[in-house]
Amino acid sequence: MKFATYRNGTRDGQLMVVSRDLTKAVAVPALAVTLQEVLDDWEGIAPELQTVYTALNNGELDDAVAFDESLCESPLPRAYQWADGSAYVNHVELVRRARNAEMPPSFWTDPLMYQGGSDDFLGPKDTIEMGDTSWGIDFEGEIAIITDDVPMGVEAADAGQYIRLLMLVNDVSLRGLIPNELGKGFGFFQSKPSSSFSPVAVTPDELGDAWRDNKVHLPLLSEYNGEAFGKPNAGEDMTFDFAQLVAHAAKTRHLSAGAIIGSGTVSNKQGTDHGSAIAEGGVGYSCIAEVRMIETIRDGKPTTGFMQFGDTIKIEMKDNDGASIFGSIEQKVLQYQAD
Amino acid sequence: MKFATYRNGTRDGQLMVVSRDLTKAVAVPALAVTLQEVLDDWEGIAPELQTVYTALNNGELDDAVAFDESLCESPLPRAYQWADGSAYVNHVELVRRARNAEMPPSFWTDPLMYQGGSDDFLGPKDTIEMGDTSWGIDFEGEIAIITDDVPMGVEAADAGQYIRLLMLVNDVSLRGLIPNELGKGFGFFQSKPSSSFSPVAVTPDELGDAWRDNKVHLPLLSEYNGEAFGKPNAGEDMTFDFAQLVAHAAKTRHLSAGAIIGSGTVSNKQGTDHGSAIAEGGVGYSCIAEVRMIETIRDGKPTTGFMQFGDTIKIEMKDNDGASIFGSIEQKVLQYQAD
Repeated sequence: MKFATYRNGTRDGQLMVVSRDLTKAVAVPALAVTLQEVLDDWEGIAPELQTVYTALNNGELDDAVAFDESLCESPLPRAYQWADGSAYVNHVELVRRARNAEMPPSFWTDPLMYQGGSDDFLGPKDTIEMGDTSWGIDFEGEIAIITDDVPMGVEAADAGQYIRLLMLVNDVSLRGLIPNELGKGFGFFQSKPSSSFSPVAVTPDELGDAWRDNKVHLPLLSEYNGEAFGKPNAGEDMTFDFAQLVAHAAKTRHLSAGAIIGSGTVSNKQGTDHGSAIAEGGVGYSCIAEVRMIETIRDGKPTTGFMQFGDTIKIEMKDNDGASIFGSIEQKVLQYQAD
Repeated sequence: MKFATYRNGTRDGQLMVVSRDLTKAVAVPALAVTLQEVLDDWEGIAPELQTVYTALNNGELDDAVAFDESLCESPLPRAYQWADGSAYVNHVELVRRARNAEMPPSFWTDPLMYQGGSDDFLGPKDTIEMGDTSWGIDFEGEIAIITDDVPMGVEAADAGQYIRLLMLVNDVSLRGLIPNELGKGFGFFQSKPSSSFSPVAVTPDELGDAWRDNKVHLPLLSEYNGEAFGKPNAGEDMTFDFAQLVAHAAKTRHLSAGAIIGSGTVSNKQGTDHGSAIAEGGVGYSCIAEVRMIETIRDGKPTTGFMQFGDTIKIEMKDNDGASIFGSIEQKVLQYQAD
């Protein structure tokens, strides 16, 4: 199944069931008004939604409308939990190497995860409004899952069963604020402003064979200012799969239905010491910071700058037939003006 | 006004308006079913709730029931945002001194704040179920506020106006997991399991003169295993007031209605180098870790242990007439057993 949330003037928007090919959508107010309602009672509501979804795909619903990504908020415009892993340890190792720091070996066995803020997500086409480009505005292309209720202490081997939906993420980061903030020892806060998610959230079965081992085995496409920037395969070099990330998040707490768990920036090692840009024949990157690390390792200092006002980022994933699975995140950075 | 949330088998519970003296309560389904609904439209709903509250206090409501704290969940059983400051810098300085580390001077001007998880709060009388006492189970007595929508970039001087409600918090912490987790650089996650909140959330005007300068000028009472453990005044030694904490949280993001911002562990400097326990004539502490730091500074090592299975913690605040303002958090630590 595929779901989106249309803006309707409320805080949680209007749930829409979206056809597999992203051309049609239908509201299902008799079943649920919001996506959180569905997640709150997945077992009860999902079977009826499946009936609607099948009919929608078959063109049997008179009340279906043309699906319009521009009307979408993030599938959960606000959520109760957003925990973001850093499962592509290659990315973490690069960060460390760029500053001549050794990565602790435990990073290969104990996932990095930060607690994100989830009260005010951006929509997939919303501008990223920031006060100052000196904050080092960066995108981070990621995959995220949404869980059902997950019991505390769940083992990784059992955690995959609680994964209900998948989305793409732009985990907007403020690189200039990170060193001071992490130096204080309490983790990210101001340096991780509102994230945005793909227009559509999909059940794992929509990915077919591309969903296996609790990973998404497809390239994540990033286009920066209209140019191909990254196409790393999200199934490669993912040291911790989503079941392991869920288990990590649930070690000392229950997770409630609708909890979002992110993969961290998708990054492929590419069989070289420092990866390769798409222009160099490689798969490129899912954030600017990684390019800057490569430049630092190779040239002694970074030459690529972070995002400027007016810059755009597009993040998408296509199936093996070239069809968009989640719709696209497409955002422009603009100067924030207080009302 | 005073509000509580009764368990009713739903995820968000049943909003109850509670009388000032905590003896009576009434449901207001015609106005709002949950506290989040009220926060989502404070301007629209609060005036009508004020009318109900006045009538309840005057004993004019036939449908009022006896208020029962044991039926309460946390006022927001789950929330979209829980950000916890560490505004009593004395507490932070002690932590550092206990490990012979200097505290950066910026800590007196730039608030510490961590992003907490908010999808599964404990109720005020719920057991704290943990897998292992070697995790170093500790309580942290704190004050928290709940905001209305707050615009990104708000100045501290303007931020106080967005404070709608106040609560007490037990920010349960797992001290044994903190060093490894902070050492990884991404902040707290597993070391900060579900927090619990006082049965009742109150509007700032309920505190009368005790609410001024965006601080609560009353002692926070902690009772550990039935013995008085702390009574520091929450209005003293609070380096950053709640307006400053809100402004810090909103620097790079909007905050959505219902965002909870915590003060951090309430701690008084007590005019000595290392504070004093209540038995020594001092005001004591709001967490065990602080006692251990004092012991470490004084004796070279800590002698007080963290919480064991069966231990209890009670956190409460009384007005100048000795009446409980928020009701009490009363929790017992138990061994977690997976279902």
